[in-house]
Amino acid sequence: MQRAFNPSTGTRARAAGTAPLRRPGAVGGGTIASRPHAQAGHVLCRERENARLYDYERGIKSAFDAIVPTLKRVSALQHEEAFESLAQDIARRELGFELPRDILSDAWVEQLDMRRLFAWCVFATYRRYCDEFFASDPLALDDRGDFDAFLQSCGFHTLDISPCADGRLAHVIRYVLRLPHRAVRRKSYAGALFDIEDSIQKWVETEMLRFREGRPNTADAPTRYLKTVAYHFSSVDPQHQGCAAHGSDDTRAATAGLNKLLDFQRAIQNSFCCGASIDLLLIGVDTDTDAIRVHVPDGNGVIELDRFVDALELFDATARQQAAQAVRAIDDAVRNAAADVAPGMAQLIARLIENNVSQIAYVRGYHGRHYADIGHAERFIGAGVGFEEIQLRNLMYFAYLDTVEEATQDLDVGIKIFTGLNVSHGLPVPIVVRFDYHGQVPGARDRAIDHCQRVTDALQTRYADLSGRGMLHVMQVVRDCSADAAIEVLECTVNAESKAGAH
Amino acid sequence: MQRAFNPSTGTRARAAGTAPLRRPGAVGGGTIASRPHAQAGHVLCRERENARLYDYERGIKSAFDAIVPTLKRVSALQHEEAFESLAQDIARRELGFELPRDILSDAWVEQLDMRRLFAWCVFATYRRYCDEFFASDPLALDDRGDFDAFLQSCGFHTLDISPCADGRLAHVIRYVLRLPHRAVRRKSYAGALFDIEDSIQKWVETEMLRFREGRPNTADAPTRYLKTVAYHFSSVDPQHQGCAAHGSDDTRAATAGLNKLLDFQRAIQNSFCCGASIDLLLIGVDTDTDAIRVHVPDGNGVIELDRFVDALELFDATARQQAAQAVRAIDDAVRNAAADVAPGMAQLIARLIENNVSQIAYVRGYHGRHYADIGHAERFIGAGVGFEEIQLRNLMYFAYLDTVEEATQDLDVGIKIFTGLNVSHGLPVPIVVRFDYHGQVPGARDRAIDHCQRVTDALQTRYADLSGRGMLHVMQVVRDCSADAAIEVLECTVNAESKAGAH
Repeated sequence: MQRAFNPSTGTRARAAGTAPLRRPGAVGGGTIASRPHAQAGHVLCRERENARLYDYERGIKSAFDAIVPTLKRVSALQHEEAFESLAQDIARRELGFELPRDILSDAWVEQLDMRRLFAWCVFATYRRYCDEFFASDPLALDDRGDFDAFLQSCGFHTLDISPCADGRLAHVIRYVLRLPHRAVRRKSYAGALFDIEDSIQKWVETEMLRFREGRPNTADAPTRYLKTVAYHFSSVDPQHQGCAAHGSDDTRAATAGLNKLLDFQRAIQNSFCCGASIDLLLIGVDTDTDAIRVHVPDGNGVIELDRFVDALELFDATARQQAAQAVRAIDDAVRNAAADVAPGMAQLIARLIENNVSQIAYVRGYHGRHYADIGHAERFIGAGVGFEEIQLRNLMYFAYLDTVEEATQDLDVGIKIFTGLNVSHGLPVPIVVRFDYHGQVPGARDRAIDHCQRVTDALQTRYADLSGRGMLHVMQVVRDCSADAAIEVLECTVNAESKAGAH
Repeated sequence: MQRAFNPSTGTRARAAGTAPLRRPGAVGGGTIASRPHAQAGHVLCRERENARLYDYERGIKSAFDAIVPTLKRVSALQHEEAFESLAQDIARRELGFELPRDILSDAWVEQLDMRRLFAWCVFATYRRYCDEFFASDPLALDDRGDFDAFLQSCGFHTLDISPCADGRLAHVIRYVLRLPHRAVRRKSYAGALFDIEDSIQKWVETEMLRFREGRPNTADAPTRYLKTVAYHFSSVDPQHQGCAAHGSDDTRAATAGLNKLLDFQRAIQNSFCCGASIDLLLIGVDTDTDAIRVHVPDGNGVIELDRFVDALELFDATARQQAAQAVRAIDDAVRNAAADVAPGMAQLIARLIENNVSQIAYVRGYHGRHYADIGHAERFIGAGVGFEEIQLRNLMYFAYLDTVEEATQDLDVGIKIFTGLNVSHGLPVPIVVRFDYHGQVPGARDRAIDHCQRVTDALQTRYADLSGRGMLHVMQVVRDCSADAAIEVLECTVNAESKAGAH
């Protein structure tokens, strides 16, 4: 298991020599680093997009990773006379915000409450990150409209992806698959074992909107709902860093995902008449390299566990080809996997693999053969419903939940991970409890607020020991997702006086 | 607060002289009792239906009420030599089933565990009651098809009623309003404060099925979804026996119901385009007489708290009229309440009032001016989703829930009620935890079973003291509601060896 950050240096460990370097030549002078053993560049790689995504990822993670070294400096000053103003100078400079005065001003009595201060800083950084995300849309694609049209040209009106809740898959939509995050439905579940009843409900709503409002297309268009599962595995340490929910057993993870898909399909077929059905797709993600394997369905939609296209192999085989040749090679590989694959499905899969080529180049270029943090290294836990802004790898452990009662398993895993990452180093577990709501529904905001409080209470009851020792802190957040609004910070255990991140 | 049963006699207290008597004459020789001050018969009363409903209600309640006197007799025998066979003879004769051998056979060591035995008998009786309900459909109407057609002729394709979860309203569909229970959606909530998000979901599903499958009618039919709230009050003891969730304040109860309705309507209007809306209806129920008041909406659908038709007044005013005259008087009363009421709405309300006339006669005929048990007198708590068979008054306290965490308020009220009804007399609280599922959805049964166990665990944690003292017993039940199947009994805390009610 990896540590969230290195308290001695305050920076996340990075494989030596992975600092982004300009490399002139073949691939058009992108920002891909030269690596001894791995081909980092690829003729189909979108270098500019990679640079933009990397700047964004590095910026956000650096902000979180600056917290510990900054607090260490602050700690060292706590008995100086001008402590408060010195501390605020450092915090403003290094973190971009001031520290809460009530915590600083109590330091002279005993000593600075570093745990509260740490949690406060994590929450404040999360808030700034959200504010930026919803204000400036840093991960926007230029061609969102094109994607909807493209998806429909493939024969699908909805792309619904359930990845594992593992933080190492949180970037699967926008980074690994390079899809517009607002155009794809994402619901994460431990082991990618999505909730069938919830998916049926989404299917029902989708069909209703097609019939009633012609969104995203009219019901007579011959398109289908495409449900996708993204399971994961580790090429570097397959026995230990695979999917925890399936005991790091890749076959079990893939089998379980496929079975869920088939169950969902059968549920739709059995519950509704007139030939109701959905299409299915199974994708595996190597969390060390971000390379995908796509299990190409045959002409009858049948998916086999051992019949897939491996994006990493294709990457290496086509990296130095002409662009048109590489594109054709990918198309051929998809069709070779299942000769009678539906043309629209083949087109979508080929697009996903082309997109993934850029991400493989991203990891190789900025991180080396594989990520340094192949294990868990999340900065906080997110519990609830929402978190659209979480499109970055290993930033947040996601416990998608309505109640603690139904999600004890996921939460216990999260607490265990953070016991290793934080508690064992004397730092508390920061949890953001969040419920997004639809502002046009009367009373929805009040219910979201009640919901936050109820889940917070249940968390503090379940983890009473950690909570009592000041080793678990909770910030409550709601957001009107219909209005595309900023988050609204409610109660926070770190601070009775002021909200974390308040300006 | 009323007691569930009278341990000294084993029979539920009934107002003196309310035994059903045949009364010849004006109303056609029905089974209506002659009452000194209350007009029991009514020209529009459906006597035969009343007799059938009463036989059913009396049969079920007698079965539950036979438990205590039978167990008292069994208790008196526990030190006799042939105790086990004597006890079984009595149980077979009085209760219709045998008692669990393991409990009886342990009696000689210390003494008979009456608490376990009592809970076991309640559960066994519940099971027999369910089995009969799903096997022989005792509350079926002959004209279910007619009702759907009638409802559509009134301009509605769905009638969705949210009563209060109070056990005194559990019979509102089939008895108070005399509607076919399978043709009406019922979701009970404390204070009738229904869940708007849940209702939106139902509206979405309903619209989808109209568009896609033409069920119950096609989407181009000019009908609407009718959401109804049934709040309640007590005419006998308004300060204490009204709705507990609203502090027995009738105006508060009605206002809260109306506001929920308006919020739901606004939610639909704001969430969907193309003039999406729903119609609303507010009904008050006097839990002492079962008489309703209907707040007639005006031509714009506006509902006023002080503008309603009182079925009890109409009953007394029209009891001795000719049938046609009485029907016309009801129609006139509805239109007098709101001159521009939509004709379809007026027709539906008039039907509800005509139906309610039979129920008013039922209460007066079989119980007198009002029920003897005007307070709580439930026999057990039902927690979960399902309970379609509960169409009888004051039989079950209903906590509609997915999790204990979200329903602590409702459950705490239920436990408080049963502390008075049972615990204070040394008897345990029997709780049926039940989750119905759709058998055509793969894995749904397994998830329902897990759900039962999770909620049971949470109940035992929350009420650990009662549970530890053997004063809280839980039977877990699932049911495939798509197949219209019998209930399936799972674990039960009363008995490790055999399931309660197993034959």
